[in-house]
Amino acid sequence: MNRDVADPQGGWSCPRPLDRYPQVLLAHGGGGRLMQQLLEQVFLRAFDNPLLNQRHDGAQFEVGGQRLAFTTDAYVVRPLFFPGGDIGTLAVNGTVNDLAMCGAQPRWLSAAFILEEGLPMAALGRVVESMRAAAKAAGVEFVTGDTKVVERGRGDGLYVTTAGLGVIPHGQCIGPAQVQAGDAVLVSGDLGRHGMAVLSVREGLEFEGPIVSDCAPLAALVGALLEGGIEVHCLRDLTRGGLVAALNEIAACARVQVAIEEAAVPVSEPVRGACEMLGLDPLAVANEGRLVAFVAARDAERALELLRAGPHGAGAQRIGAVHAGSPSRVTLRSRIGIARVLDVPSGEQLPRIC
Amino acid sequence: MNRDVADPQGGWSCPRPLDRYPQVLLAHGGGGRLMQQLLEQVFLRAFDNPLLNQRHDGAQFEVGGQRLAFTTDAYVVRPLFFPGGDIGTLAVNGTVNDLAMCGAQPRWLSAAFILEEGLPMAALGRVVESMRAAAKAAGVEFVTGDTKVVERGRGDGLYVTTAGLGVIPHGQCIGPAQVQAGDAVLVSGDLGRHGMAVLSVREGLEFEGPIVSDCAPLAALVGALLEGGIEVHCLRDLTRGGLVAALNEIAACARVQVAIEEAAVPVSEPVRGACEMLGLDPLAVANEGRLVAFVAARDAERALELLRAGPHGAGAQRIGAVHAGSPSRVTLRSRIGIARVLDVPSGEQLPRIC
Repeated sequence: MNRDVADPQGGWSCPRPLDRYPQVLLAHGGGGRLMQQLLEQVFLRAFDNPLLNQRHDGAQFEVGGQRLAFTTDAYVVRPLFFPGGDIGTLAVNGTVNDLAMCGAQPRWLSAAFILEEGLPMAALGRVVESMRAAAKAAGVEFVTGDTKVVERGRGDGLYVTTAGLGVIPHGQCIGPAQVQAGDAVLVSGDLGRHGMAVLSVREGLEFEGPIVSDCAPLAALVGALLEGGIEVHCLRDLTRGGLVAALNEIAACARVQVAIEEAAVPVSEPVRGACEMLGLDPLAVANEGRLVAFVAARDAERALELLRAGPHGAGAQRIGAVHAGSPSRVTLRSRIGIARVLDVPSGEQLPRIC
Repeated sequence: MNRDVADPQGGWSCPRPLDRYPQVLLAHGGGGRLMQQLLEQVFLRAFDNPLLNQRHDGAQFEVGGQRLAFTTDAYVVRPLFFPGGDIGTLAVNGTVNDLAMCGAQPRWLSAAFILEEGLPMAALGRVVESMRAAAKAAGVEFVTGDTKVVERGRGDGLYVTTAGLGVIPHGQCIGPAQVQAGDAVLVSGDLGRHGMAVLSVREGLEFEGPIVSDCAPLAALVGALLEGGIEVHCLRDLTRGGLVAALNEIAACARVQVAIEEAAVPVSEPVRGACEMLGLDPLAVANEGRLVAFVAARDAERALELLRAGPHGAGAQRIGAVHAGSPSRVTLRSRIGIARVLDVPSGEQLPRIC
């Protein structure tokens, strides 16, 4: 840590409730309540502007009569390589998916690498090759980039940050504010695979069956919904904090109740078994190729058909609906019919999974 | 380091001449020859496309009839705070300047933070406040972002990556390919202050006078040139590797000789003294608020006047000219009239200054 950051005040006064923690904790990056506080009290407070305040996966604005979406993500997954992908596939698909969640066609990507001194050149080569292949598969191009090297012990092999730019071709407005009572809630496939795949290699765990990350680009799947004329109100990819975090964010933003049927949420047997063994909730585990879609109820069945026929959507399911009942709340009705509130954890179950 | 990156091959074969170093060195990020090899053999080879191959500070393309510039940079400066700025001002001005070097008006920025567990919240607050103020000064907005937290010992307080998007309002084409024999070479002010300011606090050195970073946004200065009708052929901000690296890149790309007069290059007395003491070449030290401009010779005097009247351009000087003589070469004529080749170092004099 730098000497001069030890100054506890430095002219800046920490806003409540953030001041309970004078230092950054792992939980501040976990997708839970502490991260929400950090975002609101530090970043959103300082950078306050209408585009940022959309609080969607990407900013949407118009240039020369063309609507664009712009997004960024830093990728810090540990380990760099895991079943079903690596930090490179993640860095492409994660940013492609954030653009897709705005209803945009992803087009141009930037990549900024922070390399740790001593990283095997072959590891970098493999990651870059994964990025090339993932970009090709998603139909995007890396058009600009940067590379920095930090001393041994000041990084973790490599971190990569991608930013992405896409064009929004249609007139539809997609975002939490469009969600309304009556909407059907769909997911594009089984949940929890990415987080458990990363955990299995990180901790050297052997589960009953092999678990492979769901890491995949979702723009074509979103394209299928929009070109199919589905009235899509909101889309969100289920990354940090999984389904639980995404639904809570949307419910809070749209001031609606989102009611989920536990029995309808697809979770594979290996993931369910591994989560039980470790005491984790698969609905709060990260995915990297799964989305939740809020669509007009009358379009729900056709949307499911389109998702199931599309790439990476074979396991799509209708998992619940939006009610006006208890605003800003997510409820889960269990297999035996008991409803409970599905709240965000304060930190996260698994750090460094994306 | 992750266990599984220890595999020296991993299906990827390292291209020459990169295979001389099986691991990433600090010099691979230093702006010198090793970094050029890394960029060419790993990144440009994999991501090969016309926009990336422009090899400018940002990619330029057209959307809906509007030309845009898109760029990214990762900031890893150590220490986080230095005389004249901090990592936050750097992250705004660096990206703003990369856009400006494309002749673009910077507009929208993204920010991705990698926080190290244990970072004082007040340090983060100060950096974010600096970013807010710098963005306001440069007329840009942060419209999207991301935050990740890594374990203690896997970072260095905080790293931040910004990407930027700007609009190119004019019909002029600015880039190394436009440079031609006869062009005048101008710099916007004295060189080497940023690198020496960072070094002074990092190493606890006391020089004869205080050295304050030149960190500043340059978009308004570029705007003054373009609105003034100057025929600007190429612009480059003088960051990693300083003037030496920038001129060599441009000379190589434009296949021209760039001839510089040492006596004409502005370097302040404190910077000159500090560099002499440490055996550094001020022309190869990083700046964060200085640019080199290649302009048509007939416009040179008027361009100098515009620069000197503009923000952060008071110390502008004409330092040399472009010749057809020795392609891809930068030459320096010393104060006593002896000319020598000004080559890029293999690594860099000072790591982690941006």
